[in-house]
Amino acid sequence: MEWQRLREKAFTTTKEALAASVNDNHLIIQAVASMEDLDRTSNTLIKRLREWYSLYGPEFSHAVTDNEAFTRRVLEKSKQEQLQELQCKQSMGADLQEQDVQEMLALAGMIRAMHEERARLERYLETIMQRHCPNITAIAGPTIAARLLQEAGSLRQLAIIQASTIQMYGAEKALFRHLKTGAKPPKHGHIINHPLIAKAQAKDKGKIARALADKLSIAAKVDYFKGDPIGDELRKALEERFG
Amino acid sequence: MEWQRLREKAFTTTKEALAASVNDNHLIIQAVASMEDLDRTSNTLIKRLREWYSLYGPEFSHAVTDNEAFTRRVLEKSKQEQLQELQCKQSMGADLQEQDVQEMLALAGMIRAMHEERARLERYLETIMQRHCPNITAIAGPTIAARLLQEAGSLRQLAIIQASTIQMYGAEKALFRHLKTGAKPPKHGHIINHPLIAKAQAKDKGKIARALADKLSIAAKVDYFKGDPIGDELRKALEERFG
Repeated sequence: MEWQRLREKAFTTTKEALAASVNDNHLIIQAVASMEDLDRTSNTLIKRLREWYSLYGPEFSHAVTDNEAFTRRVLEKSKQEQLQELQCKQSMGADLQEQDVQEMLALAGMIRAMHEERARLERYLETIMQRHCPNITAIAGPTIAARLLQEAGSLRQLAIIQASTIQMYGAEKALFRHLKTGAKPPKHGHIINHPLIAKAQAKDKGKIARALADKLSIAAKVDYFKGDPIGDELRKALEERFG
Repeated sequence: MEWQRLREKAFTTTKEALAASVNDNHLIIQAVASMEDLDRTSNTLIKRLREWYSLYGPEFSHAVTDNEAFTRRVLEKSKQEQLQELQCKQSMGADLQEQDVQEMLALAGMIRAMHEERARLERYLETIMQRHCPNITAIAGPTIAARLLQEAGSLRQLAIIQASTIQMYGAEKALFRHLKTGAKPPKHGHIINHPLIAKAQAKDKGKIARALADKLSIAAKVDYFKGDPIGDELRKALEERFG
């Protein structure tokens, strides 16, 4: 009887500890992984829609390369309107029955819903990043900062590791190729998408990546130890130096 | 001037021929491929949802293995209701904030929309199969019949090939393994999902697959040459012999 009580108590305590162990880290990692899954899956479906739609309006499928724009215009404009805009008098696509067209539009509508869900997740990610780690978010934006957090596994880990590791996160393949074969080392991983690096000239990218990773490393420590906000200041310093 | 006119005439004729070449074959192949893409992509997203949701209610994620049922119940029942149904007094999941829960539900809602779109496509496939090849559809059902059509590439091809090829469609990997290594030959490809084969004992499956493929081969010829309906009759004969 005493044992039974002890056993139950142990279960309760463990369950409580498990429940308490879930924190913003876990939510951020799930949210950013969901965004990636949505990107991948909506791309698969867009390719299908393009192939299907090109039976009906091949000219249009070729003319609009952006996926979101393609989906939106398929839904909003009729074939006639689209052909007029392209100044195309005669389509190579078939005249399908109304029902056949509706089915394509239903698929397009679902893809649009996926794009909307992706945008919604991005907004959520921003909220939760602001609350969990405002400083790295201020410097790198929510998406890149969340990817770094995802690689590190936790904010604690991100605060502990070297700046050069932050610089390389997302470029593991190139890094190990470098270590094994002596190929050129990578300059940057996920942070390559940061506006400062994206718009820089090739010769400057490495230097900016190093500086950016340094600031991110400082900001991660401030975030983890709940120090005074420093993110905006660090971002401005970077922008003044490289912007 | 004359050349110019000739050139334009040639373009027009070619475009007309291209537009006219699209037929139900193409629509069926796109519809069945869309269904497959939807299955794959919604499974990817369901796995993500399960992982995410298990931060909140791990007991429930384990208890419901069916994906559609899982999505539906996440949307329809609160965590409390679910725990009560499982007679679980204390959850190992975290008490998340309302906003964090809402984001998971938004993803679940999108997955449900994908399931609905899949069901819609299935109904569409049935309509178009009935109009294009009613006889093979009567025997094998719209989904299996459409898969066979997709493998063959056209109804004409399906009407021409041997019954044994129809039997093997979808089992190419096992067939070539048999030819190369002498492993056991496959008994059936896509038709394995046919109710008559699915519910048969292992020792009978090969025999039924052969008979089914024979009837499908006859039905495909009738469909292609627009003969008198024979599908229902052939299906009944199969059901009487093996049902």
